[in-house]
Amino acid sequence: MAKSMTLLWGSGSPPCWRVMIALEEKLLQGYNQKLVSFGKGDHRSKEVLDINPRAQLPAFKHGDNILNESYAAVLYLESQFRSQGTPLIPEGQAEQALMYQRMFEGQTLHQKLSDIVYYNLRVPEDERHDSTIKRNKETLTAELKIWEEYLEKMEPGSYLAGRSFSLVDVLVFPVVAYAVRFGMSQEKYSRLGAYYTMLKDRPSIKATWPPHWLEGPGSDLIKDL
Amino acid sequence: MAKSMTLLWGSGSPPCWRVMIALEEKLLQGYNQKLVSFGKGDHRSKEVLDINPRAQLPAFKHGDNILNESYAAVLYLESQFRSQGTPLIPEGQAEQALMYQRMFEGQTLHQKLSDIVYYNLRVPEDERHDSTIKRNKETLTAELKIWEEYLEKMEPGSYLAGRSFSLVDVLVFPVVAYAVRFGMSQEKYSRLGAYYTMLKDRPSIKATWPPHWLEGPGSDLIKDL
Repeated sequence: MAKSMTLLWGSGSPPCWRVMIALEEKLLQGYNQKLVSFGKGDHRSKEVLDINPRAQLPAFKHGDNILNESYAAVLYLESQFRSQGTPLIPEGQAEQALMYQRMFEGQTLHQKLSDIVYYNLRVPEDERHDSTIKRNKETLTAELKIWEEYLEKMEPGSYLAGRSFSLVDVLVFPVVAYAVRFGMSQEKYSRLGAYYTMLKDRPSIKATWPPHWLEGPGSDLIKDL
Repeated sequence: MAKSMTLLWGSGSPPCWRVMIALEEKLLQGYNQKLVSFGKGDHRSKEVLDINPRAQLPAFKHGDNILNESYAAVLYLESQFRSQGTPLIPEGQAEQALMYQRMFEGQTLHQKLSDIVYYNLRVPEDERHDSTIKRNKETLTAELKIWEEYLEKMEPGSYLAGRSFSLVDVLVFPVVAYAVRFGMSQEKYSRLGAYYTMLKDRPSIKATWPPHWLEGPGSDLIKDL
């Protein structure tokens, strides 16, 4: 099954990482894959464009089916391989509701983090403002606090939607790890820190850890939040 | 079942509209609902905050389960009421893949439209730039062209993922209607225009049409794209 899948990915990209974790959890190892360098601009290569005309990663294909949006790929993999590997949608109604709700709140967390990390990349120099940067930091701080509060209300050792590892962990763990990589204080945001520590050695996550993160330290961009 | 559901919504908000269409399609009419006025700031009322601490609409509850993210609510409703009303996830693998992929591309379309519609609301006056507005318009134009091309490749009369009305239509139709409301040319973007015309009188959509849209015309904000 995995032989009919191709994934072009970039190291450290949360959307790429999500798809890789899902493939591990669904026992779909052995897919065709290639690490593409953003730095060298290889995401604009024909190889990527053939799958993803937006020149974005991941570029993911299962047979003729193209699933470049990470949320789409993960939902599709769970739907198509429901009884294979880890079941990623909990049975219980309440846990399922929480899973779906937090999955999409996770997009907000990622957005607010990206607004800071990619600010210089996305905003031309003469459109940048210190006041925007300041506001973006305040917005991310408020968002991180919301997640801390969510985790405070869960039993210790819980995953994001409860007792079982589910789609929301596949989708949001990479964003939490990304925040840590960019300097989020694990002391100040101790619940998020504990969640990060609990999951970072999970086999599916360890096997897909961004290779360049192993080579050197991250940044302290959001250290002071 | 619907009696244990409560929806607080705003007129013309695509996220709210999505949930309302899904409730109609799943035959869950008769839910408790209240139209909340953004203009009067009622989305900051205790009633909303009790369900949605972010003070956003929709605020949606099924029993004790809170689903304020429209994508979450729609996925949850389909999962919980699979065999009731319209089946919203197609059986076929290829159609399912396309549905998931376009669902999340639809978020990009909504984002790019919102960047224009809400620019003055979201960006303080001294951080605004004509160059940003110009770029946002170019970006939306490119995005609309992508959707035109997608629809050109489908058989005439297709829904967004193929022969059946599915989750992607529930989620993306309100965004297309929103673009039309803000002046998108249905001549220039004729496939999107035809899709809009095909769906606007579908019972679930007609029954939930934003009430204030019936009262007066929209704007021509994106007329020139």
